[in-house]
Amino acid sequence: MQKIWIKETKNLVNKYVNLFGFVTNIRDHGKIIFIDLKDRSGIIQCVIDQNNNKFSQFKLLKPFSVIKVSGLIKDRPAHLANPHLETGKIELAIDNFDILSLSETLPFDLDGDGYDLDEALRLKFRYLDLRRDRLQKNLRRRHEFLLFLRNFLDAYGFIEIETPILTKSTPEGARDYVVPSRLYPGNFYALPQSPQQYKQLLMVSGIERYFQIARCFRDEDPRMDRQPEFTQLDIEMSYVTKEDILSFIEKMFVEAITNLYPHKKITKIPFPRLTYKEAIEIYGSDKPDLRINNNDNDELAFVFIVDFPMFEWDQKNNKWDAMHHPFTQPILPNGEYNKEEILKLLDKNPELLFSEQYDLVLNGFEIGGGSIRTTDKDILLKVFEVLGYNKDDIADKFKHLLEAFSFGVPPHGGIAPGIDRILMILENEKSIREVIAFPKTGEGRDYMMDAPSEISKEQLAELKIRIIN
Amino acid sequence: MQKIWIKETKNLVNKYVNLFGFVTNIRDHGKIIFIDLKDRSGIIQCVIDQNNNKFSQFKLLKPFSVIKVSGLIKDRPAHLANPHLETGKIELAIDNFDILSLSETLPFDLDGDGYDLDEALRLKFRYLDLRRDRLQKNLRRRHEFLLFLRNFLDAYGFIEIETPILTKSTPEGARDYVVPSRLYPGNFYALPQSPQQYKQLLMVSGIERYFQIARCFRDEDPRMDRQPEFTQLDIEMSYVTKEDILSFIEKMFVEAITNLYPHKKITKIPFPRLTYKEAIEIYGSDKPDLRINNNDNDELAFVFIVDFPMFEWDQKNNKWDAMHHPFTQPILPNGEYNKEEILKLLDKNPELLFSEQYDLVLNGFEIGGGSIRTTDKDILLKVFEVLGYNKDDIADKFKHLLEAFSFGVPPHGGIAPGIDRILMILENEKSIREVIAFPKTGEGRDYMMDAPSEISKEQLAELKIRIIN
Repeated sequence: MQKIWIKETKNLVNKYVNLFGFVTNIRDHGKIIFIDLKDRSGIIQCVIDQNNNKFSQFKLLKPFSVIKVSGLIKDRPAHLANPHLETGKIELAIDNFDILSLSETLPFDLDGDGYDLDEALRLKFRYLDLRRDRLQKNLRRRHEFLLFLRNFLDAYGFIEIETPILTKSTPEGARDYVVPSRLYPGNFYALPQSPQQYKQLLMVSGIERYFQIARCFRDEDPRMDRQPEFTQLDIEMSYVTKEDILSFIEKMFVEAITNLYPHKKITKIPFPRLTYKEAIEIYGSDKPDLRINNNDNDELAFVFIVDFPMFEWDQKNNKWDAMHHPFTQPILPNGEYNKEEILKLLDKNPELLFSEQYDLVLNGFEIGGGSIRTTDKDILLKVFEVLGYNKDDIADKFKHLLEAFSFGVPPHGGIAPGIDRILMILENEKSIREVIAFPKTGEGRDYMMDAPSEISKEQLAELKIRIIN
Repeated sequence: MQKIWIKETKNLVNKYVNLFGFVTNIRDHGKIIFIDLKDRSGIIQCVIDQNNNKFSQFKLLKPFSVIKVSGLIKDRPAHLANPHLETGKIELAIDNFDILSLSETLPFDLDGDGYDLDEALRLKFRYLDLRRDRLQKNLRRRHEFLLFLRNFLDAYGFIEIETPILTKSTPEGARDYVVPSRLYPGNFYALPQSPQQYKQLLMVSGIERYFQIARCFRDEDPRMDRQPEFTQLDIEMSYVTKEDILSFIEKMFVEAITNLYPHKKITKIPFPRLTYKEAIEIYGSDKPDLRINNNDNDELAFVFIVDFPMFEWDQKNNKWDAMHHPFTQPILPNGEYNKEEILKLLDKNPELLFSEQYDLVLNGFEIGGGSIRTTDKDILLKVFEVLGYNKDDIADKFKHLLEAFSFGVPPHGGIAPGIDRILMILENEKSIREVIAFPKTGEGRDYMMDAPSEISKEQLAELKIRIIN
């Protein structure tokens, strides 16, 4: 690949080069035209004068036309240097050019940060909005952050394993998206709310240290900063204590931030711990913002919330809900594990049980939760009962997991930090949509692709489903 | 994380250690019991004798029970060393142990390679089959291979960008899986057959170098070695020629194999090129196996197939099909690009057109295809017409892409190597199912999770769909 990145031109004075990019900022002085040529790396001023035999053609260019230019990189006279530009001391004297693609007038301006524009319009033309410096940076940082996490986890013996997207409907707190099967009419796949069961099964497989940058899907009711699909760093490990997991995750985030966001200040290391009770009593929230200066975007206040109750009462449905999920290990009020005592409390006083759950909170946002898992079949079955599953439900939804636990299961636990939210905070954004390449609206609409949308009668017929009006 | 990997014990002679793992290979000599303790890294012999006060409890263990053992690592007498074991010169003298999980008898043996077992049974108990050394290695190598590709691409300025899984139904040659929308009854998302349109839109965004280890979905008819979802390394780049792409991809594979599979021999570097016509005429196939010794699994014969016809005649439906896809740049029979001439041939003799398509073939398998894309709206519209799309179809399915091309589009092209197939070949496997953690059958069934399966009446009602019997 021969292309020279534009930011490298500052080291190529007196060289004849070919450059490619978008034309921006055209300054037509009649007999001489200046443009800025922009690629992903930077901007360079290019100049052409009327002696060039294609000068009249150059006059046709509108901003965001794509061109190839050839010419000599020259030093600018010192008084014409632009100190705000990385390549401000040089310019390209256009010898030749090719117009690769003309541009019509864009539907909105790309110079500013774009926050004040109608977001529906920005989303419809997302591919244009992504030309904005701010969003280019957000995508690049997201890439760098995820690659850092992958290499970090690899260095500690973790293996990234892809788990299926077409899987089975299992209750995990939210609604599943489902996919009708054409080959098995009347049957459906479900998209995973998380790879929870797969990662636990991988522990049964003896993988010991698993991770995945995983796509998760939840069909929930519209909310401003919610997406139908989101990305989490899914982690599970065997033969570890809660303490092992928390200190490892802390180390991971501290190293990532030190390397990629060196200007950010972490309020307190080691990350403070608050019990759920303390958090509620002191801060009135289980996701307190512990920044010393609440308006400082470059301050990062991590805090682990621990010692959650195992269950919470669901007043609406008059039943117990799992505070985290059914797979979390319950523990006694004194913090100890004793199977017989736990089974007794599950029977009589589930409200007294705590659990091996932990949340990681950053600047007032829950950015991840996890737990040590129940690997004892008797306890897991009893938890399902407390939660109101009947025996058929349990057999249908969790048979494979319960069965798996009868063939030797290493004790295990994990955590699943939410990537979109973390990047939002690190990039000082107000919405996760600013750190996702192609987000949907809070109502799950994709204005760019126009999805969801109707499908053909033939498709419906093949799937053997009918729409009820 | 305090856990010691078992393979490290060979360097810990005379140290008192805690080890965790599966019990395998129990040899009960009455007064003394030998077991092998196995974790992801290796195996160590452990020994306990009747003087241990928990000896009778140890007798209860069955293979694949999970235990913690504590004791001293000792040198074995030289004549009792096992040269086949990495830790064969040492053993652990069990001082204490905890049974963490008992195991029932496994439904099949895990000692051999497992090829001769009933595959349905292996897939139902996939979490046990994955304990097999061969599959553990396949998962580890897959992780290493993908991480290598990510770091390689990062070093060349590529950015990994996640594109949506919930998107819009667009015709790309196969059937889409669709997802009914609860919030917009009667409307559907579609799962992407590939991120083709997103990656081209990212080129319009000025990303210039994009990649993604992407999940793709195709609802096709059953075939032995086909999966409803598969993984491809999706790559797209701006301002490149076909030659740039081919030589870059060659470099990537050569470096990956040199680093991760140093014992493999690449038949010929640079990879040979064959035109489609040559491949068919000489080898009777557009995916010829160019190994010198066809039975040598450690020989890797890459070949690029180039100069494909743009269209092929679909006899069944009496219409033209795109040999690659509609987004591929057509070129003239003499290999040149001339817009007016191309438009003429599209009108009158589409069969004479070639295209900027290329396939990468390895040992007789197509492992990836790609092309330089058409970024000229007039040509793209005409190609859609030749393929039989009417104006409404085009407006409905491709409006955003055609519109995008009117705002300045950098010329671009890409390629998408199929990860499952490549790993299959590199790991000398006969089926892609051996290199996928949780594969489905050729008919799209998941025997482990039991998917696809029925969903509840409430779910159907919420989605406002009905099943036609």
